[in-house]
Amino acid sequence: MRDSRIVFLANIDPDLQHSVLRQVRSPGFVACDSMNYWIENKRASLKSLFDKIDMLLLNDAEVRQFTGRSNLMKAAQEIVRQGPGALIIKKGEHGVIYFSKRSHFIAPAYLLETIHDPTGAGDTFAGGLIGYLSRAKRIDDASIRKGIIYGSILASFAVEDFSVNRLLGISRRDIEARYDHFRRITKF
Amino acid sequence: MRDSRIVFLANIDPDLQHSVLRQVRSPGFVACDSMNYWIENKRASLKSLFDKIDMLLLNDAEVRQFTGRSNLMKAAQEIVRQGPGALIIKKGEHGVIYFSKRSHFIAPAYLLETIHDPTGAGDTFAGGLIGYLSRAKRIDDASIRKGIIYGSILASFAVEDFSVNRLLGISRRDIEARYDHFRRITKF
Repeated sequence: MRDSRIVFLANIDPDLQHSVLRQVRSPGFVACDSMNYWIENKRASLKSLFDKIDMLLLNDAEVRQFTGRSNLMKAAQEIVRQGPGALIIKKGEHGVIYFSKRSHFIAPAYLLETIHDPTGAGDTFAGGLIGYLSRAKRIDDASIRKGIIYGSILASFAVEDFSVNRLLGISRRDIEARYDHFRRITKF
Repeated sequence: MRDSRIVFLANIDPDLQHSVLRQVRSPGFVACDSMNYWIENKRASLKSLFDKIDMLLLNDAEVRQFTGRSNLMKAAQEIVRQGPGALIIKKGEHGVIYFSKRSHFIAPAYLLETIHDPTGAGDTFAGGLIGYLSRAKRIDDASIRKGIIYGSILASFAVEDFSVNRLLGISRRDIEARYDHFRRITKF
């Protein structure tokens, strides 16, 4: 674990995220999740992580809360200027927006007929995205975009049943099939 | 006008939409808009239009209101089964979903830094979409998808200023540039 090249700091107290990161010997790519509670109560600690991480994941409400801006584009640009090279904004059923210093990428969410429980969708998304990046030849704009779609696809399975039940029942083939379907239903 | 092949029944009393449509000699493609007021007060008249039109445009709240279903996919399938071959669901800043009897298409909205007034966005979207279809070689799944993106792009200009001010100041080249940009920021 201390030799990991790809590090995902899941949503815990930013002080602990700092502590975890210090214990990794030579991190190559660091992503970080957070939430409204830490934005309100540990803002300075969270902010001081920004120049130590490569990617920040927040939902749209958290981005607005952190910046005090209602316009997501302006809010995202403000955060990206503060350090994290990439910001992923999770919008739940409305998809994902990814901002880098130079450009952005917009992806809708996979449309579902049955939604049982959105609990864990954000964590599943992050797992799919970071998992994809850990296998990618390089982490760049193209692989992050593909990773975002894989993350969305994984999350779309997660919400179809309670807990991890649905994820336990799917194979790599199911994921690839839904990824291909997603490509077909977004092509123009 | 009575010889029009492409007909767009903009949002008025469904009784009047029936009357307008009867006056068109040989309509080739008919699209129809509506709103919450007619869904509540002229439901039967609106519903009896469904097998006379090729495309229905509603926003997400209207689709849920009409069907009583919260899940958009189930709601959309229910409407498409009732007649209109295509249903366009406008979700404002969250994009557009298009349903046909066989498949669907999901498009995010163009992300804007400045939004002055959303008034008229839906009508501008419809104008862009139907305008594109009226010039297309054929009206099929592929041209409807492209038309949806052109409609979204036109609407994105419309909301950047009050009234039609922004639309008056743009050229075909501005529209094509934003369409190309949209393609780049949605590609994966």
